[in-house]
Amino acid sequence: MPRWEVGSEERLKKAAMELFEEKGFEKTSVDEIAERASVTTRTFFRYFPDKREVLFSESDGLRAALVAKIKQSPHANEPLQLVSRILAEFDWETMGSRDFQRKRQALIAANPELLERDLIKLHSIAVGFSDALRRRGIKTPIAQLAGRVGVQVFLVAYERWLEVGHKADLASTGESMMSHLSRMIPRSL
Amino acid sequence: MPRWEVGSEERLKKAAMELFEEKGFEKTSVDEIAERASVTTRTFFRYFPDKREVLFSESDGLRAALVAKIKQSPHANEPLQLVSRILAEFDWETMGSRDFQRKRQALIAANPELLERDLIKLHSIAVGFSDALRRRGIKTPIAQLAGRVGVQVFLVAYERWLEVGHKADLASTGESMMSHLSRMIPRSL
Repeated sequence: MPRWEVGSEERLKKAAMELFEEKGFEKTSVDEIAERASVTTRTFFRYFPDKREVLFSESDGLRAALVAKIKQSPHANEPLQLVSRILAEFDWETMGSRDFQRKRQALIAANPELLERDLIKLHSIAVGFSDALRRRGIKTPIAQLAGRVGVQVFLVAYERWLEVGHKADLASTGESMMSHLSRMIPRSL
Repeated sequence: MPRWEVGSEERLKKAAMELFEEKGFEKTSVDEIAERASVTTRTFFRYFPDKREVLFSESDGLRAALVAKIKQSPHANEPLQLVSRILAEFDWETMGSRDFQRKRQALIAANPELLERDLIKLHSIAVGFSDALRRRGIKTPIAQLAGRVGVQVFLVAYERWLEVGHKADLASTGESMMSHLSRMIPRSL
């Protein structure tokens, strides 16, 4: 069996997700994932450094794609809306079907090890936004607030969007969260 | 030497911090920490489940203390300001001197393993706030936004406050960040 067989990575991801759902993340071994994907354990480690990373293999590319939009945007002077819009208008379906993303999110929420990994990936996106905004001339605390708050507002919207039966698309759910936030901050400040 | 000697926990924390600074977090072993604190390795594990937790031993108590303030507050109808005020008015000096906190923050920022742990602790504080606000009758997305955004705004303020030479106290630094945020959100929303 060729080790770098076409489709191995996708099969490994699919097998891992199935097993995590069937047996739980902790009780699934790398050997079992490899076996179900019909590859060797060694092949698994060619694609992923550890069991957690199967769920985060897109994250470096995702961060780079999102942060690159800051560099090109004519709206750097509205940093919080810019970050929110970049996140809410990204084509998240490229990360897998909504059903897949819902299952992935449930797995992450149920496993502290996965949650830790997810949080550091999200943090690195926020920091990426802040750094890119600073390079666009935005002052430090403003750039930090835009990156960090923008990511959090998006996450609240994203979790709503993943709920079964939620009708609105992600962009308008994000806008609606931003209006909530706007009403939560006193005008007098 | 008695194993539950008075002061062991404090000595272990002090020894760990010194060694992390001298040798780096990764290159410091639990054995070395125990040796410098003049206790056995077994004593170390009576106090801390792993090397990372030495820096987070206060975090459960801290979360409980912060979240409890939501239950008692007459200002649950202004959830974002309430969360911000609780965080910015907390007596952070009880967590160690500002110099100690500055060193701790630098260690966390430099070690992904520590950063992961820090982020999950902060996340649990945000979730604690949101849950407590929901129990006070605040609707879900508002409670989530208040918890998550409130913690992020605080963190930007906290990092500023830790900067050498920063003059303003944490409460007014927090207020100033909230005013920045207010000006970043369009009135038209």
